[in-house]
Amino acid sequence: MANPVLVEVTRGDGVESRHRGAVAVVDGAGAVIVRLGDIDRPVFPRSAVKPLQALALVESGGADHFDISTEELALACASHSGEALQVEKVEGWLRRMGLGIEDLECGAHPPRHPDQVAEMIRAGEEPRRSHNNCSGKHAGFLCTALHMGEPTGGYSGPDHPVQRRLRALLSDLGGCDLSAAPHGVDGCGIPVIAMPLVAMARALAAMANPDGMPGPRAAASRRIFSAMTGYPELVGGDGRFDTRMMAAGQGAFVVKTGAEGVYGGILPRRGLGVALKIDDGATRAAETAMAAALEHFGELGGGVTGPLADLLQPVIANAAGEPVGAVRAVIEWNYAMY
Amino acid sequence: MANPVLVEVTRGDGVESRHRGAVAVVDGAGAVIVRLGDIDRPVFPRSAVKPLQALALVESGGADHFDISTEELALACASHSGEALQVEKVEGWLRRMGLGIEDLECGAHPPRHPDQVAEMIRAGEEPRRSHNNCSGKHAGFLCTALHMGEPTGGYSGPDHPVQRRLRALLSDLGGCDLSAAPHGVDGCGIPVIAMPLVAMARALAAMANPDGMPGPRAAASRRIFSAMTGYPELVGGDGRFDTRMMAAGQGAFVVKTGAEGVYGGILPRRGLGVALKIDDGATRAAETAMAAALEHFGELGGGVTGPLADLLQPVIANAAGEPVGAVRAVIEWNYAMY
Repeated sequence: MANPVLVEVTRGDGVESRHRGAVAVVDGAGAVIVRLGDIDRPVFPRSAVKPLQALALVESGGADHFDISTEELALACASHSGEALQVEKVEGWLRRMGLGIEDLECGAHPPRHPDQVAEMIRAGEEPRRSHNNCSGKHAGFLCTALHMGEPTGGYSGPDHPVQRRLRALLSDLGGCDLSAAPHGVDGCGIPVIAMPLVAMARALAAMANPDGMPGPRAAASRRIFSAMTGYPELVGGDGRFDTRMMAAGQGAFVVKTGAEGVYGGILPRRGLGVALKIDDGATRAAETAMAAALEHFGELGGGVTGPLADLLQPVIANAAGEPVGAVRAVIEWNYAMY
Repeated sequence: MANPVLVEVTRGDGVESRHRGAVAVVDGAGAVIVRLGDIDRPVFPRSAVKPLQALALVESGGADHFDISTEELALACASHSGEALQVEKVEGWLRRMGLGIEDLECGAHPPRHPDQVAEMIRAGEEPRRSHNNCSGKHAGFLCTALHMGEPTGGYSGPDHPVQRRLRALLSDLGGCDLSAAPHGVDGCGIPVIAMPLVAMARALAAMANPDGMPGPRAAASRRIFSAMTGYPELVGGDGRFDTRMMAAGQGAFVVKTGAEGVYGGILPRRGLGVALKIDDGATRAAETAMAAALEHFGELGGGVTGPLADLLQPVIANAAGEPVGAVRAVIEWNYAMY
């Protein structure tokens, strides 16, 4: 059966496009609170699980050994925009570990923001690997490998201990066997393993309920949550959905985007983990669906919705800047399994 | 019922994303040859019907009155990339009519190609309205209005004769009543009216069978087809799907992209009109589905498929440029209604 339509794109008085997808919400006991669409189908979690991946950096002792700052930890969980400040901080972290940009095994790509791209073009500057939106995560991998006495070269390979640890973490927190799961290579070159959407929600729910975790993991989880909510401008960038949402939330929740329409959410107040995937991979739909989930679970109260209206229902504008349509969530929470 | 999955996006050994949609193929007699998904649902045809819209420019006598070149006619049917040569030709056409860039009622947007954007940034040049991918179409509207003695100001308004003629053309060739259809504003500021996908295919089929049209319309239709297939580099741009496909086709067919996952095809050898819409609006899926349609109808024979392999099954690469997945059509033509 097809997944339900979660988001519609309107133009004038018509619906122009429709995005289907699945939403899984799980509580601290592992109970499924919302089941919309096929949440048992494996999806590549992409960057939406960066907060989970960062657990290895903290738990291993690497973060403490290299005395990383809260900003650096936020960058380890980031899909950053490649803004000058973000890139400088990652490069500084690498230098402090005695490493350089060339040790990053992610490819280079231009920064996300057109203004930043224009600035680099004017300065005759080429994108560096540190501009890659995952460069902070990769700095974290290097940090862990160095601390553990593992080779830094090849840390992105599927058999390197760094990647084995990530696999064990996701399997453990998600409560799922990933040994036979579909696997591929992520945009930044590391292995990516598909996990059921409900398992992804379960793993995020674990981070939303650190009291249920063993002591060191609970501390690591709290530290990561604080870093992301404390420096939302480093986790995304100027004008980005995650940055604006987490800034508005003032420490209440974490939301983390992933490529191809994946999103993760950590909601400690209600102790919930949220995972969603838009079937067709559209970011516009994933963001709008995540905004609707935050609103549904009461995370956007207290006058926050007004300033965030353009995230809850983004306007489609024509080339002259006139509004001609909107992206709107049409999620039937009432029919979701509670 | 949900439309079928037409295109899959793979990563490693998994399917990461899925695009649903509908395909309608109609012959010269108006018979439906392929019916995949809900082809009766109205869709905004966007730029996929530019060849149909250009009929008004030629039929009105405006094209002859201003002695427009074949290149200019191709640009009137284009969603061009804003390349220097394309923009110059549109600006030259406007000047010859005694008009200027400020008479275009489309907004400005940066050109499509990153190299072109970089060049403009280095030159300190701002995007002009003539860079809008629809600027040739708008020049055609102005040309028609001038020739008909209609006001040029306000030509993009829904009640201006220019727009009324387009509406009549689409209704006539599509064989459908558009008076109560959903309507909105297109990205370039003109009205856009939703029409059933099958009606769009019917209108394109009419252009694939000009012998069945009244004399002047048949001549106009042939002239537009020749202009688009003769100058594919003006209809799209460097590396673009339509440009590369039509160049490979060497006059055999026209394909025309539209925003939000719409595509139109004119296949005179078999006398077919093809219209498709990806539900979620993704261009990557619309292109891959149209490539599959061209292959299915035997338009890509004679050693053409090899050089076009990256259009038939585009590679997904990571930031380092390594292939990590593919976009592939999974259209079950065998189950289509013939």
